[in-house]
Amino acid sequence: MHRELLKQLLAEVQSGELSVEQALEKLKLLPYEDLSFAKVDHHRSLRQDLPEVIFAMGKTTDQVVSIAERIVASGTNLLITRVTPETAEAVQKVLPKACYHKLARVITLRTADLTPATRGTIGIVAAGTADLAVAEEAAVTAEFAGNSVERFYDVGVAGLHRLLSITAKLQQMQVIVCVAGMEAALPSVVGGLVAVPVIAVPTSIGYGAHFSGLAALLGALNSCSSNVTVVNIDNGFGAGFVATLINRK
Amino acid sequence: MHRELLKQLLAEVQSGELSVEQALEKLKLLPYEDLSFAKVDHHRSLRQDLPEVIFAMGKTTDQVVSIAERIVASGTNLLITRVTPETAEAVQKVLPKACYHKLARVITLRTADLTPATRGTIGIVAAGTADLAVAEEAAVTAEFAGNSVERFYDVGVAGLHRLLSITAKLQQMQVIVCVAGMEAALPSVVGGLVAVPVIAVPTSIGYGAHFSGLAALLGALNSCSSNVTVVNIDNGFGAGFVATLINRK
Amino acid sequence: MHRELLKQLLAEVQSGELSVEQALEKLKLLPYEDLSFAKVDHHRSLRQDLPEVIFAMGKTTDQVVSIAERIVASGTNLLITRVTPETAEAVQKVLPKACYHKLARVITLRTADLTPATRGTIGIVAAGTADLAVAEEAAVTAEFAGNSVERFYDVGVAGLHRLLSITAKLQQMQVIVCVAGMEAALPSVVGGLVAVPVIAVPTSIGYGAHFSGLAALLGALNSCSSNVTVVNIDNGFGAGFVATLINRK
Amino acid sequence: MHRELLKQLLAEVQSGELSVEQALEKLKLLPYEDLSFAKVDHHRSLRQDLPEVIFAMGKTTDQVVSIAERIVASGTNLLITRVTPETAEAVQKVLPKACYHKLARVITLRTADLTPATRGTIGIVAAGTADLAVAEEAAVTAEFAGNSVERFYDVGVAGLHRLLSITAKLQQMQVIVCVAGMEAALPSVVGGLVAVPVIAVPTSIGYGAHFSGLAALLGALNSCSSNVTVVNIDNGFGAGFVATLINRK
Amino acid sequence: MHRELLKQLLAEVQSGELSVEQALEKLKLLPYEDLSFAKVDHHRSLRQDLPEVIFAMGKTTDQVVSIAERIVASGTNLLITRVTPETAEAVQKVLPKACYHKLARVITLRTADLTPATRGTIGIVAAGTADLAVAEEAAVTAEFAGNSVERFYDVGVAGLHRLLSITAKLQQMQVIVCVAGMEAALPSVVGGLVAVPVIAVPTSIGYGAHFSGLAALLGALNSCSSNVTVVNIDNGFGAGFVATLINRK
Amino acid sequence: MHRELLKQLLAEVQSGELSVEQALEKLKLLPYEDLSFAKVDHHRSLRQDLPEVIFAMGKTTDQVVSIAERIVASGTNLLITRVTPETAEAVQKVLPKACYHKLARVITLRTADLTPATRGTIGIVAAGTADLAVAEEAAVTAEFAGNSVERFYDVGVAGLHRLLSITAKLQQMQVIVCVAGMEAALPSVVGGLVAVPVIAVPTSIGYGAHFSGLAALLGALNSCSSNVTVVNIDNGFGAGFVATLINRK
Amino acid sequence: MHRELLKQLLAEVQSGELSVEQALEKLKLLPYEDLSFAKVDHHRSLRQDLPEVIFAMGKTTDQVVSIAERIVASGTNLLITRVTPETAEAVQKVLPKACYHKLARVITLRTADLTPATRGTIGIVAAGTADLAVAEEAAVTAEFAGNSVERFYDVGVAGLHRLLSITAKLQQMQVIVCVAGMEAALPSVVGGLVAVPVIAVPTSIGYGAHFSGLAALLGALNSCSSNVTVVNIDNGFGAGFVATLINRK
Amino acid sequence: MHRELLKQLLAEVQSGELSVEQALEKLKLLPYEDLSFAKVDHHRSLRQDLPEVIFAMGKTTDQVVSIAERIVASGTNLLITRVTPETAEAVQKVLPKACYHKLARVITLRTADLTPATRGTIGIVAAGTADLAVAEEAAVTAEFAGNSVERFYDVGVAGLHRLLSITAKLQQMQVIVCVAGMEAALPSVVGGLVAVPVIAVPTSIGYGAHFSGLAALLGALNSCSSNVTVVNIDNGFGAGFVATLINRK
Repeated sequence: MHRELLKQLLAEVQSGELSVEQALEKLKLLPYEDLSFAKVDHHRSLRQDLPEVIFAMGKTTDQVVSIAERIVASGTNLLITRVTPETAEAVQKVLPKACYHKLARVITLRTADLTPATRGTIGIVAAGTADLAVAEEAAVTAEFAGNSVERFYDVGVAGLHRLLSITAKLQQMQVIVCVAGMEAALPSVVGGLVAVPVIAVPTSIGYGAHFSGLAALLGALNSCSSNVTVVNIDNGFGAGFVATLINRK
Repeated sequence: MHRELLKQLLAEVQSGELSVEQALEKLKLLPYEDLSFAKVDHHRSLRQDLPEVIFAMGKTTDQVVSIAERIVASGTNLLITRVTPETAEAVQKVLPKACYHKLARVITLRTADLTPATRGTIGIVAAGTADLAVAEEAAVTAEFAGNSVERFYDVGVAGLHRLLSITAKLQQMQVIVCVAGMEAALPSVVGGLVAVPVIAVPTSIGYGAHFSGLAALLGALNSCSSNVTVVNIDNGFGAGFVATLINRK
Repeated sequence: MHRELLKQLLAEVQSGELSVEQALEKLKLLPYEDLSFAKVDHHRSLRQDLPEVIFAMGKTTDQVVSIAERIVASGTNLLITRVTPETAEAVQKVLPKACYHKLARVITLRTADLTPATRGTIGIVAAGTADLAVAEEAAVTAEFAGNSVERFYDVGVAGLHRLLSITAKLQQMQVIVCVAGMEAALPSVVGGLVAVPVIAVPTSIGYGAHFSGLAALLGALNSCSSNVTVVNIDNGFGAGFVATLINRK
Repeated sequence: MHRELLKQLLAEVQSGELSVEQALEKLKLLPYEDLSFAKVDHHRSLRQDLPEVIFAMGKTTDQVVSIAERIVASGTNLLITRVTPETAEAVQKVLPKACYHKLARVITLRTADLTPATRGTIGIVAAGTADLAVAEEAAVTAEFAGNSVERFYDVGVAGLHRLLSITAKLQQMQVIVCVAGMEAALPSVVGGLVAVPVIAVPTSIGYGAHFSGLAALLGALNSCSSNVTVVNIDNGFGAGFVATLINRK
Repeated sequence: MHRELLKQLLAEVQSGELSVEQALEKLKLLPYEDLSFAKVDHHRSLRQDLPEVIFAMGKTTDQVVSIAERIVASGTNLLITRVTPETAEAVQKVLPKACYHKLARVITLRTADLTPATRGTIGIVAAGTADLAVAEEAAVTAEFAGNSVERFYDVGVAGLHRLLSITAKLQQMQVIVCVAGMEAALPSVVGGLVAVPVIAVPTSIGYGAHFSGLAALLGALNSCSSNVTVVNIDNGFGAGFVATLINRK
Repeated sequence: MHRELLKQLLAEVQSGELSVEQALEKLKLLPYEDLSFAKVDHHRSLRQDLPEVIFAMGKTTDQVVSIAERIVASGTNLLITRVTPETAEAVQKVLPKACYHKLARVITLRTADLTPATRGTIGIVAAGTADLAVAEEAAVTAEFAGNSVERFYDVGVAGLHRLLSITAKLQQMQVIVCVAGMEAALPSVVGGLVAVPVIAVPTSIGYGAHFSGLAALLGALNSCSSNVTVVNIDNGFGAGFVATLINRK
Repeated sequence: MHRELLKQLLAEVQSGELSVEQALEKLKLLPYEDLSFAKVDHHRSLRQDLPEVIFAMGKTTDQVVSIAERIVASGTNLLITRVTPETAEAVQKVLPKACYHKLARVITLRTADLTPATRGTIGIVAAGTADLAVAEEAAVTAEFAGNSVERFYDVGVAGLHRLLSITAKLQQMQVIVCVAGMEAALPSVVGGLVAVPVIAVPTSIGYGAHFSGLAALLGALNSCSSNVTVVNIDNGFGAGFVATLINRK
Repeated sequence: MHRELLKQLLAEVQSGELSVEQALEKLKLLPYEDLSFAKVDHHRSLRQDLPEVIFAMGKTTDQVVSIAERIVASGTNLLITRVTPETAEAVQKVLPKACYHKLARVITLRTADLTPATRGTIGIVAAGTADLAVAEEAAVTAEFAGNSVERFYDVGVAGLHRLLSITAKLQQMQVIVCVAGMEAALPSVVGGLVAVPVIAVPTSIGYGAHFSGLAALLGALNSCSSNVTVVNIDNGFGAGFVATLINRK
């Protein structure tokens, strides 16, 4: 569209309908987006193999359903995070092909093919069963974006032998998402075992002096392993998303 | 109630049924509020084989020297913590037998023999070289109180192989003091490897979101290993002291 | 199992079926746990007289029931903490011998005999009636692990005479768990009266500037009594568990 | 002054020089203070037997000296708090009768007699030697304001017998200032022993998780003794001042 | 030392120099640890004209009812704070003379006469209607303890004229309780207007950066008026109680 | 009223009924508000074109309805903020002309004409749909106070092209209210694009390390754009009110 | 410059040197700033009557001097904030016309005339002498930007009569900057007295529970006066800058 | 080494010197590291093209020099971070080839060739000049590890045109390190412009409510751009290190 507007303006200059000065004035007044199609195009191409995402928390079921319908209508793959069972049911009523990953609290709906070139496998590591919802949010996000994913659950640092028994496998991952509640010691230990980026997701799992995830967050930020970066507390989606970007060829 | 008990006791003294010494003994055995010197005696006996302690931080050199002289004069073993080199020099001038442990910032001075019955060895575990001052404060405290101490330094969780190479030795300790800065993952990992109490000492070593030890403190308090208890940030003395109590027969 | 694997490998070397170099390669590839049976055995032996523990908070009733059944089937003693009445009922339906300690919110189920060698009695001290749930969690944990336990409830520092009237008894304990909400002055006072380790459990009981237990936690960590260590807010189980370890012969 | 202004205006109304409407207009335009002499007088009378106070922290020596000279010139008693030795020297150079209380970091200078009617004695209780500066600030403030003051120092809760040995004396105080660092358990214990108001002054004495007095502050605010109120961290002056007001007849 | 004192006293009883009753009297006067019923008596006498108090928050209705019955049976005046309407109904069923102050969430029940000697009137100042529950808790507490109370409500600092219109009355109070939410500017302003102690009660009324009362608490603690002390957030009872102590003759 | 009181007093002086001294005494005793009509008038005139406001949060429906009726009866325009649908229904039952803005949670009711002189248009900028409630509270407040308002919603900084496409329009605003949750980067970016005051309203929208708006609040306070000021978290009304004051001629 | 680039491109289209498609491609590739001169121009015009500002804190003297020289060379008015006396001396050596406002820690240097159209006077209100540096930073900033400024210092809320005596003058200001440390009650009180925007600057002046300005910041953010907005702690420049924008015609 | 130990053991089994059971026992007793050479080898190979790193903060100059000499002697590339000029001088005295990057506070010393296979260029983005030290720490780290690095400095969000003028270049980076102080809005804006991972480094640059980097940290963690991960405050090295790992082929 904007391309056409610009083309027409230039054609009018070419034909003499507009003087150079008049064209200059018109260019000044055009809203920014009329000139910024490069960036927009870039974004669009980027998004051809990444889904549109709805963050359902804090939105009404009606809002989620209506945004979902619009996105699907545009032919884009759809990912909805933090979906309650009630909202999931409502989305599936109008979008029957929507798949609800209950533990991950995520809806996925594929409308476009997706075969991105990836570099390897994304490992998802988690300690307690209580962290699994966040871990699955990361895993489903990464899988839906076309990655090969391997899950390593129930590998807390207090029982080191389980973690050591999977060390060789961990060392084959291209990037690792490490989900950890309580004191979040896991990212440091995992980080020391591998030579790839480790994305730590502190979780709000804990009690007392855990302060809703603050303890885990500070633990992850102060990791003694230099290959650890951190996303927000419980942000499984963000970790899966960044892991996807790192895993792209 | 106690009034009646007392009245009866006094009446028995008056009537000659009880001698003064007998009454005195009975008064000792009355519940605490009636007479508290039992506790005082108990404390005195307890302290016969524990040193008197001066916490030098926040005191002037003059104050430290003067308190130290008084304690030594009373024939008690003396431990001074958080001693600057300047204060150490001043103490040693008046108390030439005082021994200054520079790294631990501790002065010890033995005036009385000490051969307490102990159960085993106290392990002191630390990760970074920056944590050594606190670790040594714990180690010197425990040694001065008559314990056998074994040091395990430079065993951070990011290089797990070093920690694993000492696991068998750690499992022979009677109690472990675990000094940890940064994210304080070490107590959790060590706690998972042994079956004895682990006393975590979070340190103020770190920067940025470490907030002067808060990150390490929260990490230790939220440890996923159930055998971990915690003392104040940088409180090496407290950890060495409690380890001593646990190690007593 | 792993022992058998290793044994077979060594036998093949002995018989000449495998060369030394081939055996070396095979050893390299074996996952860690195949070599770590020493530690595993150690853990198992350790746990012969300690129960398996389920932390029920944040798990569904179904999850708790299913893990509980698995543990009991393995012949291990079972302890479940933070159990709601609803979950307790569901557990008792499938495990009728499970005992629900309502105030402690703990389920215990004994399947194996337990006569550990202990050194003395564990004292559980608490001030307000509101702290009793946490105190009972510690007490039930310690009792179930085979300890003799003595309870000292309703002994706040604002009414010192009650505390003083039990001082003699407190001085006979081997280790003390001190549960304290509000400003958590109790561990300091109790710590000053005895010569054994005091494990402070700050509770979330309080309001206003208590900040869900932060005030009590900081109070306990800054105790002026050197024999005090601290566990997480409301962590009665952890305190009972460490007290058990200290009380073991 | 303002009284005269008003009187004159009313006289002009009386004499007919001003109409009622004119007077009304004039009254509207008078600044507030012209009408508020009651309050001002009240304040002045109040201050006849309370000193003027300079809070020296954050002021230059020149500023302190110049304000001090002005106050003394007005014939008022002068109290300066948080005075460094350097500033003290400068003040004494121009005001030779100024008395510098070094430990309390306070300067007092009496220019007017002071014999207020008081109800009893103010007790100042403190635990560690490190808290003495704050305790003395409170004590000197109260004494300078004409109160009888009794000091009870070195009475920490970890050595309860010392506190108990002064209980009878504490119970004779009219109001108690209780200075406490670390976990600030002292106000709770003292509060439980007496039946008068206890003003807690948390101090910044401590380290690690003390967070510059936060631990002591929260401890004091959450005291389980209902007769405890709190002033700001290290605010010995404020405590001495409020104790003075309570002790006035 | 005390041992000798006691020995001598007992010897005098033995020899008939002292009668049993005389010895008993002497024992009362000995320092506390020697015999503590003096304090107990003192406390008892103090409590003759102060009610017993139950803090209902965190207790079940059954617990509150049962403790209440026990206290009333002992003939003591009863005050219960933080009472829900449901609990109030249950209390009134078994104690029909119990009076429920709905806004204050307080129950009072008088069983003993109460005519304490007081010095003056206690003023209760509050700004917003949302602070009234806390203000009434203070007011009912003070009234039930036998004080004359005057309420000054709806006098926020943003409408200064209302506050100024009651200044003269405020200056006649013997002590003031100042209840304030939001930024808690009220205690500073009120403190500047009067010459008596002001007890600030920060409330949890506010939103956003109020952080459940933290803003008001810090405001009160940092008051620029030196006659302000502070109790815990929402602690109307504590303020009323301390005001009572100050107002006693 | 007060004017009449004063007029009468002056008339009595004029007539000789009162002597000057008598009048002086009466003036002293008059409550402040009797003399402060200037300020009151000023306030009244100020409020002639600003509505009376009720902050409904924390008030019962009955309280809101009753205050609302009183205000409307006085002929003043009425604005009620933080109104739940239930309370809205109750208000509309007794005040049928009350208009409920559901998204903004605001009730407006106009009883008086309002044509204030304004300088320009107030822009309301918001990023996420979750911030719209707060943005609408600001917008409805500003509109009801007689301002021209332009809304710019869904313009987050992560999709800069949308923000840039409205830059020219933003630059025509007289003052901008910028509502922002999460990291609150929007005020900085908007502030850099315009040359007028930007009032940032951090919102509590976020999760994890957002800490109920703290992250957004700190973001806004530390803005690198010098034309940004901040109001409390979620305080849309305050922002709309200050924008109104700035926009007044 | 960019204008010339565009003009040339359009001329080439006009002349036929470039086809429309070729021009379109070139436009796509031009960096953004080539098209954004509208905004740039706008900024420049905006800044014609506002000074360039250097924030000296955290910069070396050399850096400050070098940036200052560059700005002055460009003919723009210069304002430097947070200037130490040492840096001031260095700046004045190379820029002798630079004026150093010592109390405000600000350097001003006028190179261009400045007669902006303003609406009225900006009031600067401050309580303690310790807040004057911040207040002067605001005042000097506003004056240098061409505003009429009136200072109201030493008007704390604890001495309300001083504040009331200037109320009439305050009500004549167009906008007020209110600088307040300690509990920051001043903005609420001032805000209640006037009908214009009040910009609160919390200061770091305080001690203990002031936490380096946090108490004052929270106080200002929770102000009960709706006309108060807030800038960062000690940000006198920001307040003076926004006040300038509000005061512009 | 360990390989030899194992080989010998196996040879002894082969030769019959050791029975299978004897070998099994010996294997159990071997410390872990004797069996874990696989992992060690892996680490070693990994480190062949990554430097050894010394974190100099908190270490004495002597310690730094001594560790540096040991590393260089082993033939490994050396990187030292947080180096003061004094320490740099001392290092260069003994290691003359050491290169001190003053702004970055980093020492690099290349002893081994380094030509890792990389995927593209690492962009380092920073806003203020005060953030440059941290940005340079990241840049020097990445360059020393063999990456191509492009710096984009002085591109704050308050002057959006500068950021937009480099958008096309930013979109060509393989991974971006974004260094941001104050409110840390930059990572969100940059994250929205590119389709690669953005590693945010919040800095401690700011004042007042910045709380030593907390504001920037929370800003980065709550970024509305999903491609942002975060490292600790001021952790330029960590960001450069993770960027290196992401950029590896």
